[in-house]
Amino acid sequence: MNTNSSNIMALAPNTSTKRETVCIFGTGDFGRALGHKMIQSGYPVVYGSRSTQISNLIPKDAEVLSHAEAAQKAAIIIIAIQRQHYNFLTPLAEILRGKVVVDISNNLKLNQYPESNAEYLAQLLPGAKVVKAFNTVSAWALQSGALDASRQVFVCGDDVEAKQMVMNIVRALGLTPLDQGSLLAAQGIENYPLQLFPMWKFPMFLSLGLTAFFFFYCLALDIIYTYIYEKNNFSFFIAITIPNRICPVMALILLALVYLPGVLAAIIQLYRGTKYRRFPDWLDKWMLCRKQLGLIALAFASLHAVFTLVSPMRSFVRWRTSKGIISQALNNKTEPLDTTNAWLSDSYLALGILGFFFFVLVGITSLPSVSNSVNWREFRFVQSKLGYLTLILCTAHTLVYGGKWFLSPSAYRWYLPNIYMLSLVVPCIVLVVKFVLVFPCIDKPLTQIRQGWERNPKYSE
Amino acid sequence: MNTNSSNIMALAPNTSTKRETVCIFGTGDFGRALGHKMIQSGYPVVYGSRSTQISNLIPKDAEVLSHAEAAQKAAIIIIAIQRQHYNFLTPLAEILRGKVVVDISNNLKLNQYPESNAEYLAQLLPGAKVVKAFNTVSAWALQSGALDASRQVFVCGDDVEAKQMVMNIVRALGLTPLDQGSLLAAQGIENYPLQLFPMWKFPMFLSLGLTAFFFFYCLALDIIYTYIYEKNNFSFFIAITIPNRICPVMALILLALVYLPGVLAAIIQLYRGTKYRRFPDWLDKWMLCRKQLGLIALAFASLHAVFTLVSPMRSFVRWRTSKGIISQALNNKTEPLDTTNAWLSDSYLALGILGFFFFVLVGITSLPSVSNSVNWREFRFVQSKLGYLTLILCTAHTLVYGGKWFLSPSAYRWYLPNIYMLSLVVPCIVLVVKFVLVFPCIDKPLTQIRQGWERNPKYSE
Amino acid sequence: MNTNSSNIMALAPNTSTKRETVCIFGTGDFGRALGHKMIQSGYPVVYGSRSTQISNLIPKDAEVLSHAEAAQKAAIIIIAIQRQHYNFLTPLAEILRGKVVVDISNNLKLNQYPESNAEYLAQLLPGAKVVKAFNTVSAWALQSGALDASRQVFVCGDDVEAKQMVMNIVRALGLTPLDQGSLLAAQGIENYPLQLFPMWKFPMFLSLGLTAFFFFYCLALDIIYTYIYEKNNFSFFIAITIPNRICPVMALILLALVYLPGVLAAIIQLYRGTKYRRFPDWLDKWMLCRKQLGLIALAFASLHAVFTLVSPMRSFVRWRTSKGIISQALNNKTEPLDTTNAWLSDSYLALGILGFFFFVLVGITSLPSVSNSVNWREFRFVQSKLGYLTLILCTAHTLVYGGKWFLSPSAYRWYLPNIYMLSLVVPCIVLVVKFVLVFPCIDKPLTQIRQGWERNPKYSE
Repeated sequence: MNTNSSNIMALAPNTSTKRETVCIFGTGDFGRALGHKMIQSGYPVVYGSRSTQISNLIPKDAEVLSHAEAAQKAAIIIIAIQRQHYNFLTPLAEILRGKVVVDISNNLKLNQYPESNAEYLAQLLPGAKVVKAFNTVSAWALQSGALDASRQVFVCGDDVEAKQMVMNIVRALGLTPLDQGSLLAAQGIENYPLQLFPMWKFPMFLSLGLTAFFFFYCLALDIIYTYIYEKNNFSFFIAITIPNRICPVMALILLALVYLPGVLAAIIQLYRGTKYRRFPDWLDKWMLCRKQLGLIALAFASLHAVFTLVSPMRSFVRWRTSKGIISQALNNKTEPLDTTNAWLSDSYLALGILGFFFFVLVGITSLPSVSNSVNWREFRFVQSKLGYLTLILCTAHTLVYGGKWFLSPSAYRWYLPNIYMLSLVVPCIVLVVKFVLVFPCIDKPLTQIRQGWERNPKYSE
Repeated sequence: MNTNSSNIMALAPNTSTKRETVCIFGTGDFGRALGHKMIQSGYPVVYGSRSTQISNLIPKDAEVLSHAEAAQKAAIIIIAIQRQHYNFLTPLAEILRGKVVVDISNNLKLNQYPESNAEYLAQLLPGAKVVKAFNTVSAWALQSGALDASRQVFVCGDDVEAKQMVMNIVRALGLTPLDQGSLLAAQGIENYPLQLFPMWKFPMFLSLGLTAFFFFYCLALDIIYTYIYEKNNFSFFIAITIPNRICPVMALILLALVYLPGVLAAIIQLYRGTKYRRFPDWLDKWMLCRKQLGLIALAFASLHAVFTLVSPMRSFVRWRTSKGIISQALNNKTEPLDTTNAWLSDSYLALGILGFFFFVLVGITSLPSVSNSVNWREFRFVQSKLGYLTLILCTAHTLVYGGKWFLSPSAYRWYLPNIYMLSLVVPCIVLVVKFVLVFPCIDKPLTQIRQGWERNPKYSE
Repeated sequence: MNTNSSNIMALAPNTSTKRETVCIFGTGDFGRALGHKMIQSGYPVVYGSRSTQISNLIPKDAEVLSHAEAAQKAAIIIIAIQRQHYNFLTPLAEILRGKVVVDISNNLKLNQYPESNAEYLAQLLPGAKVVKAFNTVSAWALQSGALDASRQVFVCGDDVEAKQMVMNIVRALGLTPLDQGSLLAAQGIENYPLQLFPMWKFPMFLSLGLTAFFFFYCLALDIIYTYIYEKNNFSFFIAITIPNRICPVMALILLALVYLPGVLAAIIQLYRGTKYRRFPDWLDKWMLCRKQLGLIALAFASLHAVFTLVSPMRSFVRWRTSKGIISQALNNKTEPLDTTNAWLSDSYLALGILGFFFFVLVGITSLPSVSNSVNWREFRFVQSKLGYLTLILCTAHTLVYGGKWFLSPSAYRWYLPNIYMLSLVVPCIVLVVKFVLVFPCIDKPLTQIRQGWERNPKYSE
């Protein structure tokens, strides 16, 4: 650490710096890391600590004083102390009056306390201008400079100028401040680093549940049924055959579920004759996780593609192929080319390839940097037009692939339909309703409603 | 909506806010959405409206006054009204004198009016400081917070301070302002949200045209010719065989077209002996859409890869394979391994894989966030060096694949060359000229010219 | 150029602009491009030049004066001149006193001069406020507006206000300023545009070295050994078979090398009982290039996937398959399905597919825009949890694939192990050590140490 501080110092300005002194309360891990980074960016740093004995872990150019002395030297005081020790600040309230006090604390659990740490601090120090910031940055990242993950620093506070001062420091450290409004936003900011893909939770559980259901459904129909009635042990189907049956089904259903809420919303708006009433909560939530549903669908589709492509390499498939060829050879005959079969096989492959291609295109525009560089018209064109094209192609791919089995009794083992038939239910409903909705006689009133027209204006009063 | 406004309010600051009041003229969809978002970010909002009757759609904390009263309360007035109603503002010109007036309007068509809406507004209100902003943001995105697409807000105006005030509001709403200069840029800003991939238009039309041409070319040679002269119905080739013949041809030609303008520019500069004369317009335009051409080429290459990989699963291919094996079996003989054939087959596959691999690498660096994190030297290394390597590998892949057919008369149906021969014309020209250009005796004067040297200095005067 | 300047003019503000005049010394390529862009953004520009004769290459609205006259007209002077001519500025030192002088120069080599150009300029002009900026932008990009690569402009300087003024100009030109601290950072900023993927150098050399080693190893065992002892000429294995043997080995080893330093660091911390001592230098460097190692491993894994998928299309594989089928047919027998074989074949394929799938997921989160939009907890979840899952799946894939050969003597040609056995060494070590480290009795002290606890506190004094 010592050898390192010298080359950090090399970056510090030595002349005519006008940056204001920053005071840091607390010499823990994060306090030290922040101090190092600030000195590097040209800020004089003074530490407030219980013991003013200088530890060699503290940046060399920083002063260490008592809390009261340190606070008097700076206009900005960063509290790098855990919430449970905040009450030691109460005696310092008078010294901190009018100063900018920055709360950088995090909790261990979501909504651990009734009020956010920053609001609690503001209650303890009524005269101070409390700003919440820096809680999303890790000490390790600050120290190593390896800011691979987010450089975003959420900032909130009731005093606009205090917030501006903190945001200038954030910018000077090479990070990106994001103004989140008043101190009431602190709860959300403190919860942010504790979140683990909150938007993905529902889509993930839904897909895991559906996957488990389809897995046991296939297990019953493909392995157990075959074992009981045909005495064949096809247990190795668990590795590839069944996953490759589940993946396309999941991809198609999830893709259809992306477009179902839009269709439902249109029906609700048409029925109510106004857009000024809120949708049911479940529909709102559904609409906000469409992107996640779509990306999980794309993941399943990709797995389906790879599982399909490896099939010629499978021991079972090679055995089946050679068995077929040998039996033809032993019977001394060659089957002629079945053109209908060739058409069906080639067209479901081609439909699948095109569907997957457009699916990947739509997926690429979901990358933050790509969606950020297109305008709204382009974004909607890709997400809606290309998305529906994908859904149509994938549904057609499934229909052409399995169409012949709809009427075949052997497809209904234990009187249950094959899962690819189940997979077609939702997409077909979505496509049929959407097809009805684009008819001019229905599309026109819907467009009017979406532009603000109301069939029954009393609703909105 | 009502239940929603309460939790929006929860985010509004309740103490010591110093944000200036903002006035919004117009209580339509966008005016309301903007008002909501501004209150959420701590701005007091006052609406100017014809009827001051308070609708429950308007944010609860906003005042609704007459236009004149509302305008007097704020330094910034946002005009959320359509252009055709702007003339009602003329009587207010005196009140708006010296104020910042923000034009957020959009048109329905590109270049709908001779002058931009913002310039028209500036003519109507000669004393006001007109700023164009917010037109690229959708009301729905503001309301739902689902800013998946661009957070960029283009801002322009003649008064620097007025622009700065508006940009501060933009930042406070969590959006990214982009200063576009004076009000003369408003026309471009108003056209921006109406654009649908303008840079992609020419490359798309070019590839559609070429694809259609090659499709009919293949249809004639592969299906109609075979049907007439060999009595075989290979109509199912339309699904996979022909697309997989067109895709690699298109990918190779478009990739070569990415590098052709650079080579042409070098020849023009060498011929003129100076870099200070503009290239012909078509060359300038061509150079600006190279990235798009390259990405379309990559799309065709990807399709070619997948179409090729599915081939062992095709009914036709399986029939052809088993036919070959059965005829060998019936003749009681096994053909020995043809090492030359194995070499050819393996090397064109390996060349294709490597070419595709580098093509994808170059494609990944075209992602905005990746190209933003490399410096110019690295960007040029990838786009030029790796790009040429891709072109060389793909051309070699095609040559090895089809080389044996160049001299075979059966490849010339109706005396027409096979399309893979056509596909080699442009890439070979580009590679040969590039090869000549890297010779020191030609590279040296070219480098000098590009550093500003002129063979004939009178040209530049 | 001339025809172009008129439409650039169209964008210039014509009224009430308050932007300060900028002076540019030097009328070379970059000086002109910068001037054009500044006029476009509303800055009055005055050129300082030896000959005040107006060239038609200089933007029409710019004045051209002598150096002294030009400098007096502006508060900011941009030095668009090469370092070797800086000494002509010495007589102007008095005029430049107190002014902001912007150094935009670049060198031809890394660390070409003992001190950076900007520091040298500051020594020549002791009274001027020297700011380093704009050196990362190319003249061509400024002129054409095709800022595909980085829009980032690194800015450094000792005077905070001067730096702020320059950063405002940078923002107005549509670029993103990044404050890098004091003028001592200029050396790094001047080196930046000369770098060519510095973080990739070690991982690239390591993988090239390993690849070469494994290539000759395979060449010896697979081609030369076969040629000598079995008289078979399998030289065509060089094209696909050997690359497809090297790629998975490289992918697995490099992936394991991504996780090895983390495991080593944990052992070192446990041994020392503190986290407050620096790791050896090689370990620090290794840790900082883990992302690059992982991405190269992903590239090898992708190549392995494609090489494997094309195998049914290879002439050699088709010959081998038909030979097997024909020999069965001629012997008049059909081999029954070997269920164990089917299980092995399907499970190593499935493990490989899943491993590759999670590998790609981890790779996608390495895209700057994706990693920027997740918080630290999410980033670590993906990079560590999913990363280890990938390593486990890929190791299992290799074990299942080649497990049967470990005990077979034919796998040890010339008493050397097959390379897939070599590839398992590092991953197995990493997984075993990691498995030990997650045991509570070891994990608990490690977590304490990482939270700042020290077994032997005297170490840190």
